Amino acid sequence: MKAINIGMLGAGTVGTGVAKILFENKEIIRQRVGVELNLRRVADIDIERDRGVPFEDGVLTTDAQSVVADPEIDIVLEMIGGDTIAKELILQALENGKPVVTANKALLAVHGTTIFKAAARNGVDLAFEASVGGCMPIIKTLRESLVGNRIKSMAGILNGTCNYIFTKITEQGIAFKDALSDAKEKGYAEADPTLDIEGIDTAHKLAILTSLAYGTEVNLNDIYIEGISSITPLDIEYAAQFGYKIKLLAISKDLGHSVEARVHPTMIPFKNPLSNVSGTLNAITVSGDAVGDIMLYGHGAGMMPTASAVIGDTVDIARNLICGSAGRIPLLSYQEDEIRNIPVLSIDEIETQYYFRLFVLDRPKVLSMISGVLGDHLISIKSVHQKGRKIDGSVPIVMMTHTAKESNVKKAVSEIDQLDVVSDKTVLIRIEDENEEE
Amino acid sequence: MKAINIGMLGAGTVGTGVAKILFENKEIIRQRVGVELNLRRVADIDIERDRGVPFEDGVLTTDAQSVVADPEIDIVLEMIGGDTIAKELILQALENGKPVVTANKALLAVHGTTIFKAAARNGVDLAFEASVGGCMPIIKTLRESLVGNRIKSMAGILNGTCNYIFTKITEQGIAFKDALSDAKEKGYAEADPTLDIEGIDTAHKLAILTSLAYGTEVNLNDIYIEGISSITPLDIEYAAQFGYKIKLLAISKDLGHSVEARVHPTMIPFKNPLSNVSGTLNAITVSGDAVGDIMLYGHGAGMMPTASAVIGDTVDIARNLICGSAGRIPLLSYQEDEIRNIPVLSIDEIETQYYFRLFVLDRPKVLSMISGVLGDHLISIKSVHQKGRKIDGSVPIVMMTHTAKESNVKKAVSEIDQLDVVSDKTVLIRIEDENEEE
Repeated sequence: MKAINIGMLGAGTVGTGVAKILFENKEIIRQRVGVELNLRRVADIDIERDRGVPFEDGVLTTDAQSVVADPEIDIVLEMIGGDTIAKELILQALENGKPVVTANKALLAVHGTTIFKAAARNGVDLAFEASVGGCMPIIKTLRESLVGNRIKSMAGILNGTCNYIFTKITEQGIAFKDALSDAKEKGYAEADPTLDIEGIDTAHKLAILTSLAYGTEVNLNDIYIEGISSITPLDIEYAAQFGYKIKLLAISKDLGHSVEARVHPTMIPFKNPLSNVSGTLNAITVSGDAVGDIMLYGHGAGMMPTASAVIGDTVDIARNLICGSAGRIPLLSYQEDEIRNIPVLSIDEIETQYYFRLFVLDRPKVLSMISGVLGDHLISIKSVHQKGRKIDGSVPIVMMTHTAKESNVKKAVSEIDQLDVVSDKTVLIRIEDENEEE
Repeated sequence: MKAINIGMLGAGTVGTGVAKILFENKEIIRQRVGVELNLRRVADIDIERDRGVPFEDGVLTTDAQSVVADPEIDIVLEMIGGDTIAKELILQALENGKPVVTANKALLAVHGTTIFKAAARNGVDLAFEASVGGCMPIIKTLRESLVGNRIKSMAGILNGTCNYIFTKITEQGIAFKDALSDAKEKGYAEADPTLDIEGIDTAHKLAILTSLAYGTEVNLNDIYIEGISSITPLDIEYAAQFGYKIKLLAISKDLGHSVEARVHPTMIPFKNPLSNVSGTLNAITVSGDAVGDIMLYGHGAGMMPTASAVIGDTVDIARNLICGSAGRIPLLSYQEDEIRNIPVLSIDEIETQYYFRLFVLDRPKVLSMISGVLGDHLISIKSVHQKGRKIDGSVPIVMMTHTAKESNVKKAVSEIDQLDVVSDKTVLIRIEDENEEE
């Protein structure tokens, strides 16, 4: 095998980055892999635009079907994204016996089972490192480096848009909507930012990682998802006063007979290295029974970092083609017949610590009423602080709890919010990585 | 292939950890790999000691030769360490056609070429992830995930002993020798800590990483090495006042026609995520032309984290045995015939920024004399601070420079130290990751 011919579907941002790497680093890739990777066909609806890439004549086409059908193409890169034509093209490529690289987390989170089965049935590789955490090699780390570990938990900052917004609010004390506007201006948030700020993009990634870590099928609907739009500068400021930052975390835990999989704004102590991850950066901590905690950190998105991950996958597949070792590593980390269906714990059943912010009338016995309700629901208070000044006769109170059960917390908050002395809806933020003994 | 038989040489700390994983996580490894990994033979000089591992009868032996010669053994794990018998046993295993996993950085840094050639000649794999950074998958990341990148630079905290000592001095303001005693008491430093505190262990690891990153042979003697024993609490405190931490860094840069490879105490700004890496933890930042900066972070040593990396390597090799894909990834990241001999830049030729601490008589014009000498050697001062109180008529002065050439800095310091107004030898610490524009 003297060269590997690559067909790429979609030459948008990431696709263009992939093409740039294949041209600019062609020689260094050949020195490492031993054969050339040739970008032979590129399909896009717009083949006129100058992408700053010296495509040879006849490489660009508007006919994606012809690329996946081309007998000369060895590997197909799906860089279209979304859930329109990408799925059909991937399935066609796989049926044609062509391995596929994709960065399409939305597609994998929803139609993963169909796609993975098609790859297995046709005995070809499917690689998707770029679908989670951009350039961070989290999928390779889970499937290969940590293969000897029972994974205990993962916690990740997997959406650069949300992390940028939190960083902006933290550093400048501005409101959520202003931080979002700024993110849009800078190109860090899309015109319709729903997928990002509502936590859905993070959940797509968490679904993939949870599958890989524990060998289970994950239904996206079982993942609890809470976005970041209700977080205020006030809570970020209070969190900081207690030694915490607020991040949108993807959290996954192995509880033995069930797993946790949830996405929500989370308070983490400064000592947790995830708390130092700023701006559009991504990071993930994985805890394994042998390895302890390890963390990966890098650009979770962007043209070149994502393209770097796509090239890593492409070379992995190229090496399998050269060695005849397709399927060397099971797609979902576990052998297909070992994948189980471990239930995802309902959010009501989780146990963690909580931050409450209440707005109450400044009257005697208010605190005893509130702590009475909490006590009724087996919630034990770790600390209480009266924060800030009186506004219209009310004052903010901040409480941190010991570990409590979510269903109890919800019942308690619902009762508290009905008390006459409580002037506004209670704000609730879950805490992770707190040491109960401290 | 129903099972892979493993022979292990050495059942000390890491070897025992490997055995524990192979027993305790046998089933989860089988679910992932598709075959069992059986620990069939274990050689150690002490086969009586209870290691808390349920070895079957006949597994333990004092005869290491019999393990590397055993036709039933598929993979040999060299967990002896050091440069006594390990080299010969590895070479024998390779000559017998058996792939080898090792964590022996000292051996690879000195005898790597011989060992790598033997592996290539016999067409078998040699894996050594655990030799650098313990459980951090830095070798896999360089050889696989970043294969599309031209690596520009790396900076790593690769020795837990040194990092623990710095953390201790920083947090408690104690002297180096007391921090070292504490590290010994806690088992973080060996009875003879020379290899660690003199930076030699870090240099061993840097030699391996530099080879992998740039496709060059590295002679350990070309790496500039400076240990940590001369760092005082005073400099750590001053560094903090300027917004820096001091870490023992392994630094490697691609300059095109040469590379930098050096190990020395280094000041890095708080904004650099490496500055937050405390205690015995390791971390490394890799900068690539596509990926930007990525960081890996985790336990760089210890029984189970190192064993986790050994198992990752063992499974990589097992998968190559199952698929018949030995040699799928070139040992040193580049194809053997592409490995060049890029010169390592002499330390005198490097250009960086510097921290100077001088102890001078409290007299007029002292500063103008010193800055005159610096100016003569083209060294431009960024800031000067007179720190602390007068002792015996002398005061400490701290200076930060703009980028300057090391040979000029050395000449300047040598002249400065001969001035009558200078009461003590100048302390010099190199700075990394400073933004010259700030």
